[in-house]
Amino acid sequence: MQNLPEQLAFILELDRLKAVYRQTTVKADNNRQENSAEHSWHIALMANVLSEYTEEPVDVNRSVMMLLIHDIVEIDAGDTFAFAAQQELDGQEDKEIEAANRLFGLLPTAQFEQMKALWLEFEQAQTADARFAKGMDRILPLLQNMANGGGSWVRHGVTKSQVLKRNEYLQQVTPKLWQYACQQIDLAVANGWLKDAC
Amino acid sequence: MQNLPEQLAFILELDRLKAVYRQTTVKADNNRQENSAEHSWHIALMANVLSEYTEEPVDVNRSVMMLLIHDIVEIDAGDTFAFAAQQELDGQEDKEIEAANRLFGLLPTAQFEQMKALWLEFEQAQTADARFAKGMDRILPLLQNMANGGGSWVRHGVTKSQVLKRNEYLQQVTPKLWQYACQQIDLAVANGWLKDAC
Repeated sequence: MQNLPEQLAFILELDRLKAVYRQTTVKADNNRQENSAEHSWHIALMANVLSEYTEEPVDVNRSVMMLLIHDIVEIDAGDTFAFAAQQELDGQEDKEIEAANRLFGLLPTAQFEQMKALWLEFEQAQTADARFAKGMDRILPLLQNMANGGGSWVRHGVTKSQVLKRNEYLQQVTPKLWQYACQQIDLAVANGWLKDAC
Repeated sequence: MQNLPEQLAFILELDRLKAVYRQTTVKADNNRQENSAEHSWHIALMANVLSEYTEEPVDVNRSVMMLLIHDIVEIDAGDTFAFAAQQELDGQEDKEIEAANRLFGLLPTAQFEQMKALWLEFEQAQTADARFAKGMDRILPLLQNMANGGGSWVRHGVTKSQVLKRNEYLQQVTPKLWQYACQQIDLAVANGWLKDAC
C-alpha cells in the first residue's frame, strides 16, 4: 500500500483536466466548449471502434492508453489551438515537458517512468501505436466540425492545407481513413467551411 | 469501408454523453456538475493506475474498455443518482437495455454484439474484469467527495451503509482498496459527511 498515497494524489489531480477547454464545441450541449477530459474519453473509445482500419500492426490497447494520458500535460501547460500561429506555440514544448515531469511525477517512480515514456512515444509519433493514436486525436475534431457547420474552422478561418497537414498521421497507419479525411476536407472546401489556400 | 458510415454515426452520437450530468461536482471547475463522458475517462485511467491492487486475475485492458462504454446507455436512459430512492430506479434497467440496443445498435452487427456483451458483463459483475471495473466506478466518487467536504453525500444525506454497499465490488477483487475505502468511510462519518445509520 506504500504506493497508494502518491497514486491517489495523481488521480485527484486529474480532475483539473475537466477545466481545460478546447476550441471544439459540443453541439449536443448548447455548443459549449469541449474540455480535454471528455475529448480524451471520446478518442480512446473511437480508437477501439475504428481499429479494423489499421494497416500497420497496432496494439490498440497501447494506443488507447496513450489517448487517455496524452492531454494530461494541459493541466499545467494549457491547450493550444490546433491552428495557432507559430509565435503562440513557441515554448509550448518546453512547458509540456515540464508539465509531464510534474504531473506524471506525482506517481511512484516506476509508474512515472512508464507514463512519461508512453506520453513521449505519442508526442514523437515514431511508432505505429502512436501514429494510430495521433490519427484518432486529429480526425475526431474533423468529424465534429463536419457535423457542426464547419465549427472551429469557420470561426478561425482555417485552410484546407492546415487540416490536411494535421491529419497526415492517418496516411501510413490507416490509409482508408486518410482517404475518407481527404474527401471530407474537399467537401468542407466546397461548403465554404475551409479556405482553399496554403 | 462498408462499416464506416455506421461506425461514424455511433462515434458522433457519443458526443451526447457530454451533456449527461451527474451529482458529483468538479471542484477544479467552480464545482460545476461532472458529466458522464469525463467521468468515464477518469475511471478508465484510474483502472490502469491502480491495477497492481487486483488480487484476482484481471485483464485490465478489458476493464478499461468496459469503463469507456459503461455509461453510454445514459444518453437515452439518463443518469440515476447512486443513492436514489427505489421508486426512482423502477424501470431503469429496462430503459438501459433499450438504450443499449439502440446505441450499440448504431454499429455494424459484429461490433454491436461485442459492445453489448461487454456492457452486460459490466452490469452483471460476475467476472473479475467487471468487478474491478465496477470497483473503480464506485471508489472515484468516494475519493472526490472526500476531497470536497463530503460533496454529494452531504447534499443528499447519504448514510455509511449505503456507501459501504456501493463499494463492495472492491472487496473480492481488490481487498486492499476495499480496506482503504472502509477507512475513508469511517473518516467521513467522523467528519459528519455521512450519517452513521442504515
